[in-house]
Amino acid sequence: MPIRRLPLLLLLSAASAAAQDAPATAAACSPGNVVCVELGLDGDGRPSYRVQRAGRQVLAPSRLGMILADAPKLERNLAIADVRRATFDETWEQPWGERREVRNHYNELTVTLREKSGPGREFDVVFRLHDDGLGFRYAFDRQPALERLEIVEELTEFHLAEDATAWWIPAFEWNRAEYLYHATPLREVGDAQTPITLRMDDGLHVSIHEAALVDYAGMNLTRVEGRRLKAALTPGTSTRANVSVATPFRTPWRTLQLGMRAGDLVESPLILNLNEPNRLGDVSWVKPMKYVGVWWEMHMDLKSWASGPKHGATNENVRRHIDFAARHGFGGVLVEGWNVGWDGDWFGNGEAFRFTRSYPDFDLEALSAYARERGVVLIGHHETSGHAAHYESQMDAAFDLYRRVGVPAVKTGYVADAGQAKVRDADGNLVFAWHEGQDMVNHHLRVVEAAARRRIAVNPHEPVKDTGLRRTYPNWLTREGARGMEYSAWGDPGNPPGHEPTLVFTRLLAGPMDYTPGIFGMETRAPGGVETTWAKQLALYVVIYSPLQMAADLLDNYERNPGPFQFIKDVPVDWEATRVLNGEVGEYVTIARRERGGDDWYLGAVTDAQPRTLEVALNFLEPGRRYTAQVYRDGDRADYRGNREDIVIEAREVTSVDTLTLRLAPGGGQAIRFVAQ
Amino acid sequence: MPIRRLPLLLLLSAASAAAQDAPATAAACSPGNVVCVELGLDGDGRPSYRVQRAGRQVLAPSRLGMILADAPKLERNLAIADVRRATFDETWEQPWGERREVRNHYNELTVTLREKSGPGREFDVVFRLHDDGLGFRYAFDRQPALERLEIVEELTEFHLAEDATAWWIPAFEWNRAEYLYHATPLREVGDAQTPITLRMDDGLHVSIHEAALVDYAGMNLTRVEGRRLKAALTPGTSTRANVSVATPFRTPWRTLQLGMRAGDLVESPLILNLNEPNRLGDVSWVKPMKYVGVWWEMHMDLKSWASGPKHGATNENVRRHIDFAARHGFGGVLVEGWNVGWDGDWFGNGEAFRFTRSYPDFDLEALSAYARERGVVLIGHHETSGHAAHYESQMDAAFDLYRRVGVPAVKTGYVADAGQAKVRDADGNLVFAWHEGQDMVNHHLRVVEAAARRRIAVNPHEPVKDTGLRRTYPNWLTREGARGMEYSAWGDPGNPPGHEPTLVFTRLLAGPMDYTPGIFGMETRAPGGVETTWAKQLALYVVIYSPLQMAADLLDNYERNPGPFQFIKDVPVDWEATRVLNGEVGEYVTIARRERGGDDWYLGAVTDAQPRTLEVALNFLEPGRRYTAQVYRDGDRADYRGNREDIVIEAREVTSVDTLTLRLAPGGGQAIRFVAQ
Repeated sequence: MPIRRLPLLLLLSAASAAAQDAPATAAACSPGNVVCVELGLDGDGRPSYRVQRAGRQVLAPSRLGMILADAPKLERNLAIADVRRATFDETWEQPWGERREVRNHYNELTVTLREKSGPGREFDVVFRLHDDGLGFRYAFDRQPALERLEIVEELTEFHLAEDATAWWIPAFEWNRAEYLYHATPLREVGDAQTPITLRMDDGLHVSIHEAALVDYAGMNLTRVEGRRLKAALTPGTSTRANVSVATPFRTPWRTLQLGMRAGDLVESPLILNLNEPNRLGDVSWVKPMKYVGVWWEMHMDLKSWASGPKHGATNENVRRHIDFAARHGFGGVLVEGWNVGWDGDWFGNGEAFRFTRSYPDFDLEALSAYARERGVVLIGHHETSGHAAHYESQMDAAFDLYRRVGVPAVKTGYVADAGQAKVRDADGNLVFAWHEGQDMVNHHLRVVEAAARRRIAVNPHEPVKDTGLRRTYPNWLTREGARGMEYSAWGDPGNPPGHEPTLVFTRLLAGPMDYTPGIFGMETRAPGGVETTWAKQLALYVVIYSPLQMAADLLDNYERNPGPFQFIKDVPVDWEATRVLNGEVGEYVTIARRERGGDDWYLGAVTDAQPRTLEVALNFLEPGRRYTAQVYRDGDRADYRGNREDIVIEAREVTSVDTLTLRLAPGGGQAIRFVAQ
Repeated sequence: MPIRRLPLLLLLSAASAAAQDAPATAAACSPGNVVCVELGLDGDGRPSYRVQRAGRQVLAPSRLGMILADAPKLERNLAIADVRRATFDETWEQPWGERREVRNHYNELTVTLREKSGPGREFDVVFRLHDDGLGFRYAFDRQPALERLEIVEELTEFHLAEDATAWWIPAFEWNRAEYLYHATPLREVGDAQTPITLRMDDGLHVSIHEAALVDYAGMNLTRVEGRRLKAALTPGTSTRANVSVATPFRTPWRTLQLGMRAGDLVESPLILNLNEPNRLGDVSWVKPMKYVGVWWEMHMDLKSWASGPKHGATNENVRRHIDFAARHGFGGVLVEGWNVGWDGDWFGNGEAFRFTRSYPDFDLEALSAYARERGVVLIGHHETSGHAAHYESQMDAAFDLYRRVGVPAVKTGYVADAGQAKVRDADGNLVFAWHEGQDMVNHHLRVVEAAARRRIAVNPHEPVKDTGLRRTYPNWLTREGARGMEYSAWGDPGNPPGHEPTLVFTRLLAGPMDYTPGIFGMETRAPGGVETTWAKQLALYVVIYSPLQMAADLLDNYERNPGPFQFIKDVPVDWEATRVLNGEVGEYVTIARRERGGDDWYLGAVTDAQPRTLEVALNFLEPGRRYTAQVYRDGDRADYRGNREDIVIEAREVTSVDTLTLRLAPGGGQAIRFVAQ
């Protein structure tokens, strides 16, 4: 007897008198009137919002609300109890980043929704409207009927108004974020991780993601039907709820970046702007740098993480890397497999790891001193196999050790299948966790804070996704969270040529990624080897932003190829300004960046399997100034399927009124340093 | 550092010696070699299965396994430890049903999978291969490392080998199962409930569902990407796991029904065959019947569930219904709104209900006696508003009462939003539950068993989905679990003409549905009124199988229209045999059924908004016998948009060699009784 409509009608008529004076909608636009939002309520008191950009609908009415574990859900019988507005405009400076100055200019609309009967619970929906997109969050004050929130699921929807092409990776799959991107019609999206990138048929580009993921579960998207996406929170651990928090509480921001060019998404600082300012005070000790490491050797199966005859992390091998770094101007040397725990089956078995105990053939103190004498630092490594609880039990001692010997940055790792990380529940029992569940989100922030207290930066692999927290915690330098270069060492398949021009417009919208480019040895254990040209490997240093950037290949490959290696030595990792000159998702992209505190510009262009000729106006250069363009381009025979090493290195003089014609080979690229005269 | 491939390779080489003798695959086919399955393991020891029908692939390799809350997931590092085969062939009799005799003929393949290292846990995958489809389940013996199973999610996949059209309703949405069906490409399916119906491009029809859902969470499907569907269990309540059970344990059967005609799915008894035989012994007390009731009056807002001047469940009104039922040969009278609790806001507030206390203007004992004297029974009603815990606290007393006064069947109701039912957890706390979560699955079976002890049949609305348990518990007569006729009383929109020919090939594959047809008063509160012709309303009694079948309209509408009403009076609710003569999902269907214990056949045909001319061979009739066909057909002007009442009633003589031409109006239908001479 599905009679539920009748009582609802009764409810409404009873409540309508009280709600008569309440507005039924609330709306606001961004400072330039580009992006507008309207929150409204239907006849059942269900809230929804819709979004317009430049007069056209981007989101059709999309639901808001929450399902709670221990209280009736918050999703209808609501009225607008209050509407508040504010405007904000400031320009702030990144301590390091893809640009120095960031303008944060938005109009804020806060709508208080209150239940018309029953416990009368209330919450705010806060919208921040920027010209490049918007963020919104739920905010809960402390109130008797909501002392805690046990959130089973958000009802938050993103109901796209038009058909679109979507670039996305699946959510809840065992290999976490390490998937090749699907490019499908929006209507064929399954469960997807964020950021998800959409291109509507008229060319509007949309990225849906979140900002400031703190004490909450990561948001995935599930497609309900048609063009309607809905939040799907990463599962929690010991309780039925996916999120358990006390009020007052604010959720992360749900974000939409909007732009007509694919490059607009890359240039948008929305995610950073929605995060809180730096909480760490003086962070001059956080140093972007390039590094080499004992790493690709393992992926090529030439060395092992485990001890024994193939052990990579030996004093001798590490000294060789330190010498190389000093000789070629690299700041750091990463060493994996240095600590006890790698012998035996450590996969999913993080209890074996000791984060303060070296293998006997690795002398941490001596090697740190050896590096320091040569102006180089060791980059630490903490592989946890996803056993966050075990890691936390040793974390303070481990960071103390690194602090003492002068290790300023640590790469952490959480290699375990999705859903198989380990944390302790409230009773102290070990329970399984998802890499982006609330427990792991909180774990990562504890690690970042513990590291910050020792002036150590962190670079997590198999991480929680980036949501711009580097603004608040500038020692959270970079991370992985995508299919990195190592898949081209042993993957089947390796990374295909379209992977990097996809990453730029998807994963990279979240923040920096330690992609580990710079491979010259193209024959690997992957069937197709490394499916790029050499010129593309160089271009990746500009195209893929990361303040920790590895020269990932075997040292010999660099020593043997000083010509192209010069670009890797020259390219900075910290930038004054960034411009996306052209690009289409998954096809190609050209990015120019100016060195932080310098006058030189750097340009990188990469393409998928298609060869391309791109005209690039140099109007980003300082007008009237002469530059020497040091060009690293694909040779005539270059191709990702062979002749990948065919590279031409040449120089020419240019100014800002010039236009360059970039010819990219199939799977190719081009890297240019513009040396200011 | 996504290095997980390397250690896996190590693992495998270590384990390969031990596993050398184990077969890598196990396969079996159905008795007629129509349906075949193969279970295989990949290089990581991950199991998958694939399905063929008549030599063509139906399912590409599809994963098997489980994610557990308190133990490593069961999904790889497995080897085949044992393979067992069996054959089964019997014909059993339904005490009531759409056919009397059911043949259950299958080959069984049981594959024991054991972990190659670690705790060495093991489980069986049991396949039952019928010519009309297959079922498979996971079975766990008691074992030290698996004394309990806390199942977070099944990894079970259904990876369709080819593109298809899919008919489905969304899972996890607030209105439970009461949605109109989507018809989309398979690649546009979102989260879907089962059964889901697929038609591949070459015409193969597939229904994915489950059988024997006992002590487990209902299975929904999520589309991972492309054509890959994956199990998505309905959430649990108080723990992180969706299912919590002790070993030994067997999951419900995951089922695929397969046939080239849409009608093959309807004729397939696979779901019933996969259920356990009758556990209740003598069930001659379970009586299929037609009924009228105090019900449509409420949906038309002429009467109220609540007490007061509009109260529907008054002695006078109920006596009027009893008199009508006696006069016209109906077995039962349903009365809603008879018990205390309907005043005030009862939606989602089931605590108000008292299941043994009548409103003062309803005398249960006297009315039961009044009915009994006239050869009629009252059908009880227990609306719980989803508060299962509250209902259980009064259930025994409520059934005792009904037993005492002679009420042989009870319609229950669980009207509450999805996720907002209420049960008690292990500590006795009230917690929210989903209508198809493990707690509610168990609740429904407790109700069915408590009712059976009093020889009472049940008919739950807003129920757990049907998975064929009527075979095991024959007092579980029918249920709702779809968008019923009442939406045409007040829905916006009402049920469109394509709804019923969709239900037959989707929801109805699960089992009987109390759709409540038989409306003659076509103007309702729904904007389009009842969007069928009268002839289609009659045909629904044959097309939509239910052993409890309502004549749902206001009594006056029947008294005023004795001609068409005659078919409703004549049509049986229990059948000897059923044939689907034609049909396409969502478009049209013609079904013929022979009366249980009789010689007459009945035929129903319905169409969507398209008018149709269908040629129907009468070769289902007994050869050589003459029948009088009493035809109720659409008149020339009949149309669901107007002239819905235009019906022609006529008779003709036919035999099994005749062919009838059925002309169905837009939104029309035809009903025929073939009276054996």
